Amino acid sequence: MQPTIKNLYKNSEFFANKNVTIKGWVSANRGNKKIRFIEINDGSSILNLQVTLKGDNFNFDALDQIHLGAAVKATGQIILTPNAKQEFELIAQEFELLRDTDLDYPIQKQSINLETLREIPHLRHRTSLLRAVMLIRSTLAQEVHKYFAEKQFLLFHAPIITSNDGEGAGETFEVNDSNSKSPFFGANKKATLGVTGQLHAESYAIGFKNVYTFAPTFRAEHSNTKKHAAEFWMIEPEVAFANLFDIIELADDFLKTIIKRTIEKHPEEFDFLIKNVDNELMNNLQAFLNKKLAIIDYRDALVELEKVKDQFEEKNIHFGLDFGTEHEKYLASEVAKGPVAVINFPKKFKAFYMHQNDDGETVASFDLLVPGIGELVGGSQREVDYHKLLDRALEVGISQEELQWYLDLRRFGDAGSSGFGVGFERLVMYVTGIDNIRDSIPYPRTSGNIKM
Amino acid sequence: MQPTIKNLYKNSEFFANKNVTIKGWVSANRGNKKIRFIEINDGSSILNLQVTLKGDNFNFDALDQIHLGAAVKATGQIILTPNAKQEFELIAQEFELLRDTDLDYPIQKQSINLETLREIPHLRHRTSLLRAVMLIRSTLAQEVHKYFAEKQFLLFHAPIITSNDGEGAGETFEVNDSNSKSPFFGANKKATLGVTGQLHAESYAIGFKNVYTFAPTFRAEHSNTKKHAAEFWMIEPEVAFANLFDIIELADDFLKTIIKRTIEKHPEEFDFLIKNVDNELMNNLQAFLNKKLAIIDYRDALVELEKVKDQFEEKNIHFGLDFGTEHEKYLASEVAKGPVAVINFPKKFKAFYMHQNDDGETVASFDLLVPGIGELVGGSQREVDYHKLLDRALEVGISQEELQWYLDLRRFGDAGSSGFGVGFERLVMYVTGIDNIRDSIPYPRTSGNIKM
Repeated sequence: MQPTIKNLYKNSEFFANKNVTIKGWVSANRGNKKIRFIEINDGSSILNLQVTLKGDNFNFDALDQIHLGAAVKATGQIILTPNAKQEFELIAQEFELLRDTDLDYPIQKQSINLETLREIPHLRHRTSLLRAVMLIRSTLAQEVHKYFAEKQFLLFHAPIITSNDGEGAGETFEVNDSNSKSPFFGANKKATLGVTGQLHAESYAIGFKNVYTFAPTFRAEHSNTKKHAAEFWMIEPEVAFANLFDIIELADDFLKTIIKRTIEKHPEEFDFLIKNVDNELMNNLQAFLNKKLAIIDYRDALVELEKVKDQFEEKNIHFGLDFGTEHEKYLASEVAKGPVAVINFPKKFKAFYMHQNDDGETVASFDLLVPGIGELVGGSQREVDYHKLLDRALEVGISQEELQWYLDLRRFGDAGSSGFGVGFERLVMYVTGIDNIRDSIPYPRTSGNIKM
Repeated sequence: MQPTIKNLYKNSEFFANKNVTIKGWVSANRGNKKIRFIEINDGSSILNLQVTLKGDNFNFDALDQIHLGAAVKATGQIILTPNAKQEFELIAQEFELLRDTDLDYPIQKQSINLETLREIPHLRHRTSLLRAVMLIRSTLAQEVHKYFAEKQFLLFHAPIITSNDGEGAGETFEVNDSNSKSPFFGANKKATLGVTGQLHAESYAIGFKNVYTFAPTFRAEHSNTKKHAAEFWMIEPEVAFANLFDIIELADDFLKTIIKRTIEKHPEEFDFLIKNVDNELMNNLQAFLNKKLAIIDYRDALVELEKVKDQFEEKNIHFGLDFGTEHEKYLASEVAKGPVAVINFPKKFKAFYMHQNDDGETVASFDLLVPGIGELVGGSQREVDYHKLLDRALEVGISQEELQWYLDLRRFGDAGSSGFGVGFERLVMYVTGIDNIRDSIPYPRTSGNIKM
């Protein structure tokens, strides 16, 4: 077993009295001319290892001069300390300063607010908060792949640069060759960054049955909110032969499984977040994990909202209303008291590819709303009827020529499929309790902001 | 256990005499008015399930009319058939045509050449060859995440849109808001698609020690070769405190582990590729798996090439030569007789961030060359000295202002790191034996080509 600090904490009995060598970065340095306590962190955990230095081996004046953030190497014995604050310490036999920090290193003892930290995305992960968020983010992402691998889903890499505007929503980025005026991908070929991998994923669901994408997606989103970024990662499973309820069940199982496994792997990081970010965090997550997902029809949701309409900014609760975050949060927090799937939205504000219900007004879609965030997942059963699909696409102004390949899927053995998309950063926000998307991704990109 | 066709073949004894329901697509349909054999594929394997239909339950005239590619549902008992060509069959009790294909469905019995298939990327994965490649691609990708998760590497999502041109190579795509003339990310901010996640990954290696990216990268590459695409996925691990030899060892172990596990999971797909693509495929892969990676110094490689220079188009073998594919293939196939890491290249054609060796002429870099492909992996130890790094960046024309955040890492506890990049599509080519990058990725993007 590697002697990472995470492993030391998890298996302290195993490592007791053993000699180990740890490389890491200094997170605290205190003591006097006879004994020194240097805490180091190696990035495997938010917990630090206390290195205790005493005896004639060490130059205590030099040790006193080591700054926070310095890279060091410590070798010594792990000694359990059941009566001390920390569970164990490393009694150093050797200690080496590998690289110190300059005096303007910004991560010091006093805490820095998140806004200031956003100015230094290349350094902020060395604070406990961002370290905890990024460790959890990484585990969530790896659990996504593990979940789908176990279920024999094909990992499908949708193209990023595309000539197809998936949602027909228009807020796209254009891609051009930096060094040439002639179009890289051919004359009259527009090239944009994908807003979704779904349409392409559908083509692979026919043939592979269960597929998923997990890739960056892009929106030239000008609104400056805590929930929107121009570049974000999306998880998009697509399942052939599945209907709306099959796919809601998958979304529920998927979220519960990966969240549960992530919580199990990060007890220390969640302790930290509960203490420092949201003391209800674990209660909220456990409430979700231990409950069957509520499902409510859009029309029934309207009835609930109507009852309390005076508390909303948008008080005109009517069929056709595209819920705002205030409505979404109310439905999750107050009506369902936890995550809730709202189904069968009016077709007029939903994407053209959604299955048109028999009422002629709604589509077989769902939004999964969670307390505090609002929409976390959106999905639907896809329209399998060629002519209905084409008519709706034309209605919303998509050219048939551009969409013909997608329409053709319906002529070539497509017996229907369903899928959903999870905004991965929103999932990270939900699981960690942080409330700004800029702190959920290493290098956030938003309107007017492209640091590094 | 789910009754996927893959699981049926793997556990035929378990499923024997059990009733199962399979949904899939028709890949063969033969028989007469009394008995019908319909082979279906459900995308879990390249193998098909033979469904045998006989008796009064079925309309044999209608069954005869079902076309290849049609979506169907079959329910019945799995019967082992030790004396037949196939191991077992499903004796149908029920059979339903869910969706037929139109007559112009292009995937028919006669084989189609790969070039023609590239015109229909939304359908070509329903051929055995592309199905095999994409199944292996998916497993390779999932094994990448599994490998790094086991080794406690942090999955780091580098930004895709960046204001930083990592390699200083210039062949970048520019990103602009499709609907606005004003720059989305701010005045005077260039925004391009990342050619590498490495520089950003380095910032996270300091603090997390072991990190990796696995994400799309982009190059406005005008050359029209079998090895180059404008959009491709890269795997880039970065390890703090590691030197060149540590990272070569990681690359070797990483490749061997994921290839070995992928081979174990896809016996049928590899059988198919050996028969239909390259009958030496498994021998070549096994030779790599069973041998320690050879390492050769660039200067020693020159000596080997000089001996046989007449067989090359570029015969001027001299210090400073950037190897062409012909040289790379020779070194791998003839000198090392397998994969080989060439180390210590001249600095003049390598990236500015590589550690400058004491000879003043070379950098601590490596290229891992494999037979048939040439370069599969490139990596280096990074320059840790602030001034050497800055001088080299200025020498190759990178502005200090743009790079200051990266230079600052060297002032803030950076005791050195090393990393490498694997072009994922080249890895897929190496492992499957296919020789054109366009067939290794679902929707290839190359100069003049952006289908769908």
